[in-house]
Amino acid sequence: MWRRLFGRGSRPRASVPRVHPRSEAIAVARDELAELTPKPKVYLGQLAYLTLVLFENLSRAVLLAPTTEAKTSLSRATAEVLEAHEALIAELHTARVDPVAAMEPFRAELDDFRRRTQGADYPETLVSCYLTGGFLTDFFTGLAAGLPSALGERVSALLDIDQGQEVLVAELRTAINASARLASRLAMWGRRLVGDTMLVARSSLSIGGVLPGEERIEPVFTELISAHTRRMDALGLTA
Amino acid sequence: MWRRLFGRGSRPRASVPRVHPRSEAIAVARDELAELTPKPKVYLGQLAYLTLVLFENLSRAVLLAPTTEAKTSLSRATAEVLEAHEALIAELHTARVDPVAAMEPFRAELDDFRRRTQGADYPETLVSCYLTGGFLTDFFTGLAAGLPSALGERVSALLDIDQGQEVLVAELRTAINASARLASRLAMWGRRLVGDTMLVARSSLSIGGVLPGEERIEPVFTELISAHTRRMDALGLTA
Repeated sequence: MWRRLFGRGSRPRASVPRVHPRSEAIAVARDELAELTPKPKVYLGQLAYLTLVLFENLSRAVLLAPTTEAKTSLSRATAEVLEAHEALIAELHTARVDPVAAMEPFRAELDDFRRRTQGADYPETLVSCYLTGGFLTDFFTGLAAGLPSALGERVSALLDIDQGQEVLVAELRTAINASARLASRLAMWGRRLVGDTMLVARSSLSIGGVLPGEERIEPVFTELISAHTRRMDALGLTA
Repeated sequence: MWRRLFGRGSRPRASVPRVHPRSEAIAVARDELAELTPKPKVYLGQLAYLTLVLFENLSRAVLLAPTTEAKTSLSRATAEVLEAHEALIAELHTARVDPVAAMEPFRAELDDFRRRTQGADYPETLVSCYLTGGFLTDFFTGLAAGLPSALGERVSALLDIDQGQEVLVAELRTAINASARLASRLAMWGRRLVGDTMLVARSSLSIGGVLPGEERIEPVFTELISAHTRRMDALGLTA
């Protein structure tokens, strides 16, 4: 629907590089992560709360957006993330798990993550939505390989969302091209974000409170970081 | 879906009074307002931007909500308002009107309205969502009577949304029952909100830049204010 409604705007889309560099990262993540996947209730509860956090960041971008066009385009991305949240709540109900109880253990850490990564202004918030949303969606799609197969497929499908990448990249490229100083600030911001995002991803791999060793985790993070670097490239920033 | 997912929570719902006092206000509004309805493009553009503002207020409530339960319930209300926004954008496309151009004339006034009515904290934001959302939805549903009939019916249907009234009232009653001081502050806040909301509603009745006389507007506003008073009653506040 987003394409149908907004895809013919006056902004030149052709110059925007590939903004959905998911496939390689996900393929590796699926192989490497399957054994580390938490139990369905834990996975679904954490991801359900995470989609609320991604929603909060996107809705902040809507609020800060300086144009009507950006507001309405970003609101579409927000709706998409909310649909994923509701689908996850429905999965928890289907599994006869109380959604609120399943999300609750992740609230403090993810609220803290949101506060650290929300950004100080509109460009920083856009970068957050783009980088943390992309990284964590890739990561949880990879982890879904370790869920019971029918559930894993449904979750992978509901995570296959655009999250407004096209409008995020277009807005950011316009701003970055206009200011070398902004480009430099956002490059630093992107590096900080990937650090915080990796910490959140790693902490969700603990099994019985114990984190797996580096040798288990490193290959998958290498791929997720490559995807992150491609996202930075798409913005014209150095990772 | 909201009821199905969250309606069986532990919070006592039975004590919550009627929170959807729309029907009388809308019936009168439809009779009185039909002749004052702006052209479809103007009506749709204004309402589309207004739904973005209602979304921004609800998403602020999600962000400020102190519990996981309130966050996920309010996110459902937010999704509902976004669906209305998207349906209005689709109506503008169907009418071969550029949605951004149609919304643009209303941005400055409605952004200013949002800033004045967003509230300083979680309870004030909830009151804003409940009172301004209710009032303006009633008002625009009334105005829809003056649109071409098929369009008017579609717009009335898409405005027939709950906007989280149940969770808004439940959260507020809990807070108000716990603090007489908060009750007094929110009663004042509610009075200020209705003033600002009426100004926005009135300004959308201008025809060719001229506001209709008091004698045309008074009957419908009397009914809309009665509905507002019933909303305040539902919170246990004096209007």
